Amino acid sequence: MKGIKISTTNCGIKYKNRDDLLLVTFENAANVAGVFTTSSMPAAPVVWCKKNIKQGSAKALVVNAGNANAFTGKAGEKTVFETVKKISKSLNCKDSQVFVSSTGVIGEPLKHELICNAIPQLLENPISDNSAWDKAAKAIMTTDLKQKLVKKTCKISGKEISIIGFAKGSGMIAPNMATMLGYIFTNANISSAVLAKLLKEITEETFNSITVDSDQSTNDSVFLFATKEADHKLISNSSDLSLKNFKKTLHEAMLDLAKMVVIDGEGAQKLIEVNVNGAKSKKQAKQVALAIGNSPLVKTAIAGCDPNWGRIVMAVGKSCSDTSPEKIIVKIGQYQLTKNGAKHPNYVEKLVHEYLKNSQVKISVNLGISSAKSGKEATIWACDLNEEYIKINKDYRS
Amino acid sequence: MKGIKISTTNCGIKYKNRDDLLLVTFENAANVAGVFTTSSMPAAPVVWCKKNIKQGSAKALVVNAGNANAFTGKAGEKTVFETVKKISKSLNCKDSQVFVSSTGVIGEPLKHELICNAIPQLLENPISDNSAWDKAAKAIMTTDLKQKLVKKTCKISGKEISIIGFAKGSGMIAPNMATMLGYIFTNANISSAVLAKLLKEITEETFNSITVDSDQSTNDSVFLFATKEADHKLISNSSDLSLKNFKKTLHEAMLDLAKMVVIDGEGAQKLIEVNVNGAKSKKQAKQVALAIGNSPLVKTAIAGCDPNWGRIVMAVGKSCSDTSPEKIIVKIGQYQLTKNGAKHPNYVEKLVHEYLKNSQVKISVNLGISSAKSGKEATIWACDLNEEYIKINKDYRS
Repeated sequence: MKGIKISTTNCGIKYKNRDDLLLVTFENAANVAGVFTTSSMPAAPVVWCKKNIKQGSAKALVVNAGNANAFTGKAGEKTVFETVKKISKSLNCKDSQVFVSSTGVIGEPLKHELICNAIPQLLENPISDNSAWDKAAKAIMTTDLKQKLVKKTCKISGKEISIIGFAKGSGMIAPNMATMLGYIFTNANISSAVLAKLLKEITEETFNSITVDSDQSTNDSVFLFATKEADHKLISNSSDLSLKNFKKTLHEAMLDLAKMVVIDGEGAQKLIEVNVNGAKSKKQAKQVALAIGNSPLVKTAIAGCDPNWGRIVMAVGKSCSDTSPEKIIVKIGQYQLTKNGAKHPNYVEKLVHEYLKNSQVKISVNLGISSAKSGKEATIWACDLNEEYIKINKDYRS
Repeated sequence: MKGIKISTTNCGIKYKNRDDLLLVTFENAANVAGVFTTSSMPAAPVVWCKKNIKQGSAKALVVNAGNANAFTGKAGEKTVFETVKKISKSLNCKDSQVFVSSTGVIGEPLKHELICNAIPQLLENPISDNSAWDKAAKAIMTTDLKQKLVKKTCKISGKEISIIGFAKGSGMIAPNMATMLGYIFTNANISSAVLAKLLKEITEETFNSITVDSDQSTNDSVFLFATKEADHKLISNSSDLSLKNFKKTLHEAMLDLAKMVVIDGEGAQKLIEVNVNGAKSKKQAKQVALAIGNSPLVKTAIAGCDPNWGRIVMAVGKSCSDTSPEKIIVKIGQYQLTKNGAKHPNYVEKLVHEYLKNSQVKISVNLGISSAKSGKEATIWACDLNEEYIKINKDYRS
């Protein structure tokens, strides 16, 4: 993408034989927006970015894997400060235009020298062939099995627009290896205020609608950068009609990345889509959908292809006080499992068991509080829970 | 216990070669109190008991294992009604004096004939030797590996008082096998209003302070019955000083049972005690303690004896917005792990790793919001999460 330089290297934080440090620079300052973890224990780089995202301008992004720089006190703040200073001096930009992310173990000091010493070389040697995005996506991985990269195009006012994004994450959070990180880049000419509005809205339905294990990281961050290189007039109103196609494509890109994170969830073998409709509000629908998607009992049943729909009823019961057995309709795939507060008379367990052998399965629940077509619904994506998750998280360090 | 008759049998609901039906009758009506699941999908017997517990008088309790009679619609209500009628006619008591519990699979019809046909024989043949309580505790088991039974004594106004209780549960809930059930019996002469107050208070710190997998059953119920046989004057005021010893002993009995449920948690190998203090309120302390005890990442780390305290920090961060890294102090056993928002300078990982090899481990977190001695604290008990849990829940039916 024009105006963006990418470089990666191994700076020796933790991993051998792979890159663990990514630098992205913007020739002309990009507009930027970000969303961050709501944890009260945010990592030092998150604290830095939250403070500086508001001014909406970015000259550089630096991301390291192998150490989260979380719960590292004053030393952690200093590492961020030294990193930012090193880059802002080299690029002759403001400190506030340099964004930093970290992912890896919590509570271990992250030596700023490792990062700072690598900066000059990264600045001098941007990747010149078309492997740059792929290398960027790989450099930020921790326990991820695969890099997560999407490339899409769309149009704004007849002009070709690119959207390229990459992400990492394989426990929704695993503080040890930590964190869901996402970075989206576009050449569109959109104000940072509009980027912020789009990012918040779409994150809610993508990165904030996935769950691997219900845990939230100290480092979760998603950024949206716009280089403004595309030859259309600046869009500074989020309801601008020329944004329609862009919005849709950005949504697709972010949802693709979010689903890649879930599918690569620790030990996951199945993608579970949970749709809850007929709720009192979208918020309630999402709460119930997450209760289903986070229930260890639902997730283990899906792992075993067991149409144990009583566990879905249980998850609805514990997360929603406004409904009752007679109101709800539970479906797995196209099969309706319940009717009038009891098992559906036509339910055939064997058919649902067969359906659950698919690698992607759908669960839907109509709460019967509002009409199913009221739009008071939410969809979330989760993965199954099996022995592999335990193995990864039990044996990670010791 | 004088005035109580116990009988058990196999009535053919699900299990072979073991009893699956329990009947307890009270010669003179006992005073009774109960607490029940807050699920919006309560099982038919829970709906019945919730309605009738208020009148506070019990002549009989019937419990079956193997079928939860949950999400069974009108047929489920009929099964409860027929069971109650059969007993109330035989005992010549009010319907409202007959209490019913079920535990087992959700959504499968429970034939009332199986239970009703067994009632006459149960009424005629109470267990006459001292194996009665043990048999009662065994008859209500589902996936439990061990029966859970406690016997304690204390004094009220110089008179000897017995407290006997039994419980079942091995997933906090596992709707398939379902449910935490608890039954406490005493010969004390205490009004049902006072029983209700004591039971609510103590349940909050015992049965409601344990978690195996964060899921709540459609059938959870705890009952406290008082036969009034003891020769002291009726206690009808919960602040009566002569209750002091009784309260303490009841608390011990219920905590013992609650811990037995956790230790027998599906696949559990370790009991984890989590104390959170220095909170804004007791409620907040409990919320954070449960977030730690329910975190799959914390539970798997403990399973692997991995002193991965970053995961505890993460769980605090996601569940409590009022604190910050510099405020909190995290301990595992006697080891303080954090100081000033970072790893404690004297932290020695190897020592904590050794400590975590114990079968009972303690985690404590001072949130630093109020004084650690403010009493704004809570303790909960959880178990580790390992491959065995997955195996049990994945392979249960299919």
